[in-house]
Amino acid sequence: MPFEILKKHKTFDGETLFCEHQSASTKTKMKFSVYLPKPVEEIDSAIIWLSGLTCNEENFITKAGAQRNLAGTNTMIICPDTSPRGLEIPGAEDDYDFGTGAGFYVNATTESYRENYQMYDYIVKDIVGLLKSDFKVQKLAISGHSMGGHGALVIGLREPQLFTSVSAFSPIVNPVESPWGHKAFTGYLGDNREEWKKYDACELIKAGHSHPQFLLVDQGLGDEFLAKQLLSKNLENACENREQKVQLNFHEDYDHSYYFISTFIGKHIEFHVGHF
Amino acid sequence: MPFEILKKHKTFDGETLFCEHQSASTKTKMKFSVYLPKPVEEIDSAIIWLSGLTCNEENFITKAGAQRNLAGTNTMIICPDTSPRGLEIPGAEDDYDFGTGAGFYVNATTESYRENYQMYDYIVKDIVGLLKSDFKVQKLAISGHSMGGHGALVIGLREPQLFTSVSAFSPIVNPVESPWGHKAFTGYLGDNREEWKKYDACELIKAGHSHPQFLLVDQGLGDEFLAKQLLSKNLENACENREQKVQLNFHEDYDHSYYFISTFIGKHIEFHVGHF
Repeated sequence: MPFEILKKHKTFDGETLFCEHQSASTKTKMKFSVYLPKPVEEIDSAIIWLSGLTCNEENFITKAGAQRNLAGTNTMIICPDTSPRGLEIPGAEDDYDFGTGAGFYVNATTESYRENYQMYDYIVKDIVGLLKSDFKVQKLAISGHSMGGHGALVIGLREPQLFTSVSAFSPIVNPVESPWGHKAFTGYLGDNREEWKKYDACELIKAGHSHPQFLLVDQGLGDEFLAKQLLSKNLENACENREQKVQLNFHEDYDHSYYFISTFIGKHIEFHVGHF
Repeated sequence: MPFEILKKHKTFDGETLFCEHQSASTKTKMKFSVYLPKPVEEIDSAIIWLSGLTCNEENFITKAGAQRNLAGTNTMIICPDTSPRGLEIPGAEDDYDFGTGAGFYVNATTESYRENYQMYDYIVKDIVGLLKSDFKVQKLAISGHSMGGHGALVIGLREPQLFTSVSAFSPIVNPVESPWGHKAFTGYLGDNREEWKKYDACELIKAGHSHPQFLLVDQGLGDEFLAKQLLSKNLENACENREQKVQLNFHEDYDHSYYFISTFIGKHIEFHVGHF
């Protein structure tokens, strides 16, 4: 097997695994976690979960409670780390919103980052490849939170043939218009804003990209990042103008935390499992 | 209100709170977390959750997924920290299994610890008092994990009138016979083994303590601490000899982690809510 199992915990009759493998895209070792509700031979589908800023492969699998919803199904979940690590790129450890733990799911083109920060390819090639070859999974869905919600929407819209359904929690829907996006895209992609638009869900929809299934998005109205960084309404507008279907659910008082995700993850898993 | 709310997260239609208060027993500020499934006026009962070694007020409320099971009930859960903190007692920060994060739910009598390490009283007086006076709760249950499972059994057996039901995950059932117990009891209580027995579930049962309800205990058979530290079978034997009822469920392959707790916490909550 081209990945190593570092830890294994029986969970809801299945197994939570922490793994490591060599990535061809990032040219580094990368960690990911997995929940297998049943023996791997019985698994036929997978949800890829992309985490947000500062997260690694542990946050979602520890805090979201998704195992309870996946138990008994034939669907696994895989949670990759959010950037390459241990590279000692000057500046990559300075901020929570850039560099380590903040790969933004782009293929970097700037000098310091292009060698390893190929997170778009890491998901679409390495992780998808691993799921198909090692877990023998036929059907895929993608979801994520915040920066990872951005990643899920962008990857789902650019690769609709790969994913039967796409969802997101509190996604950065329009990073070319948000401070987090500006900073990350400048650092990873340079100043050419046309390049940025390839990694922006709203811009992709405006440019004609679409997914045949409706996009499921949940967003808390008590989320401190909503007004400045996440800009959910821009997604609604972009979808309306291009007839991409979206179900954008706003929730009074819920914030940006895993307490919000844990409350609604069951609905997202139902959505994805129901469309496989 | 005699406690301060530090953070608040809407969760499953209720609220997860992180709080701080001044403890009369430990003479320090102490933190705890709470989940209120409904507005506080509708809450009538509480489960006290005692965490294990190295934990603080966050671990359970973040990882166990208990909110999902409590949602819709009139039962809250409260998760106190596992020791006083910030005291600068020489040696109290050196080990994971003694001092900070390892209060063992005893009232310490040794010179360095007796002033503040009054964790038995902190639970039975401060936390119970807070629940009755501030949350207006009528009915109480107690549960916990590992060191906290030990705490729940000991407190439940010594104060049966306070708690309608008692449960534990992977408890240290017989600390006078385990290395963790030896170290903690020597440090907090000195060398008099008769003092130790007041904080040992098996010894309490042998001495005639009992709880009218059966004790619910879940234990993983893949738990690395089972043979040397937890000694679950000793509880079964002690209960048999004294006719204390116990339901001790062993689970193939499950380990000592929160993945195990999350799998079975629903059954414990059902047990406690069902007996209020």
